[in-house]
Amino acid sequence: MTSHIERLQAIRIVLVAPSHPGNVGGAARAMHTMGLARLVLVNPRRHPDPEAVALASGATAVLDGAEVAATLDAALADCVIAVGLSARPREFAGRVLAVREAAAEAIGHAGHGDVALVFGTEMSGLSNAELARCGIVATIPANAGYASLNLAAAVQVVAYELRLAAAGGEVWRAPRFEPATVDEIEALYAHGTATLAAMRFLDPRMPKRLLPRLRRLFARAALEKEEVNILRGILARIDQLLGRPDA
Amino acid sequence: MTSHIERLQAIRIVLVAPSHPGNVGGAARAMHTMGLARLVLVNPRRHPDPEAVALASGATAVLDGAEVAATLDAALADCVIAVGLSARPREFAGRVLAVREAAAEAIGHAGHGDVALVFGTEMSGLSNAELARCGIVATIPANAGYASLNLAAAVQVVAYELRLAAAGGEVWRAPRFEPATVDEIEALYAHGTATLAAMRFLDPRMPKRLLPRLRRLFARAALEKEEVNILRGILARIDQLLGRPDA
Repeated sequence: MTSHIERLQAIRIVLVAPSHPGNVGGAARAMHTMGLARLVLVNPRRHPDPEAVALASGATAVLDGAEVAATLDAALADCVIAVGLSARPREFAGRVLAVREAAAEAIGHAGHGDVALVFGTEMSGLSNAELARCGIVATIPANAGYASLNLAAAVQVVAYELRLAAAGGEVWRAPRFEPATVDEIEALYAHGTATLAAMRFLDPRMPKRLLPRLRRLFARAALEKEEVNILRGILARIDQLLGRPDA
Repeated sequence: MTSHIERLQAIRIVLVAPSHPGNVGGAARAMHTMGLARLVLVNPRRHPDPEAVALASGATAVLDGAEVAATLDAALADCVIAVGLSARPREFAGRVLAVREAAAEAIGHAGHGDVALVFGTEMSGLSNAELARCGIVATIPANAGYASLNLAAAVQVVAYELRLAAAGGEVWRAPRFEPATVDEIEALYAHGTATLAAMRFLDPRMPKRLLPRLRRLFARAALEKEEVNILRGILARIDQLLGRPDA
């Protein structure tokens, strides 16, 4: 998948009238974890505030850089599109998308200019008039009986989907050590078959499903050279115990 | 997509040694928004605690039902698999999956028995020994320079992906009113073409791209009957102003 990670810089997170500074700080932290930097606060009840700083944890740069706007219009200035979040159905909503699809569209638009993701106040969300300013309404799939995500938690989910839409789901991978070669693996199976037969665990004339099952198990694991050596060591030790030191 | 929403009942969220009761409450709320109910706390520093109740908001049932376990082993009892969250790379991790894939696997396993999603303590995450108890390591794609999600925010993202894996992304849809018929839409275009020509905005012998562009715009919008009536009303008013009352 194509990476558009630089488009995250064109995303602004707009919080309309946030009541709790802790949520502003939590939103800043959520943004920073996903590589978003631009936070706009419309009429925040308290800002700046030490509780926001505490909750922002390491994301003080996002919080310190937050802009304050007097109106939603001012917050949306120069945006090519605004995406408004709403948990509850609205009669006059235009396009309503699940947040995953909305994030993909937002990143698409971010190739042309700034894009705003707009969150309403904690108690009641965006008003109908505010939502009408948004070309897309996005909603987070949730428990219909209790769809009320905390504001910072909602920002976290949206930021996460924006990052995946922009940059894909690249994550750290388990370390890989040198893989075993096919020859080494086949020698392991031959050794194992002989030893299992010597143990009378396997009847070589009627191997049934045991060997295919073991092959399947180790194939899934994609054996490494060192692991083959460990398994050969275990087999050699069994051979010794069976009095077959040179098997 | 097949819905396995009942499998969310087989999911338990395990928090190992949470330090802040606010995070326990926030995790309970995050779980409830996504339809998860079973919370297990391993050696919580403070529990129960009024701060957890405050942050749980409407999700007190999840918080009140939280079980306390003395060890991770006890918390994982009877699980068919445990999925451990880790933001940082580990040398001896087995299968490492992005949280989206891990959620899909977890929901698959939840058809066979209980599945645990395991979160470490706020400051340092899961220890290597704790992570070794988990058959899958899950990681949330994040800003490599600051991958430290708040604990409750991480639970929110994981719970969200579990819900999507179990139940798909069903969300509320914009209300739809009665759609216009093809005949009504074609009559609108005919009327519009005539009026635009009368306005000398359109030269009918050289329509160029104007009409196709208008058709494209209205096709995207999927016109409703009432909207066609409104547009016809506007055209009729222009006709009147042009002295073409019976156009």
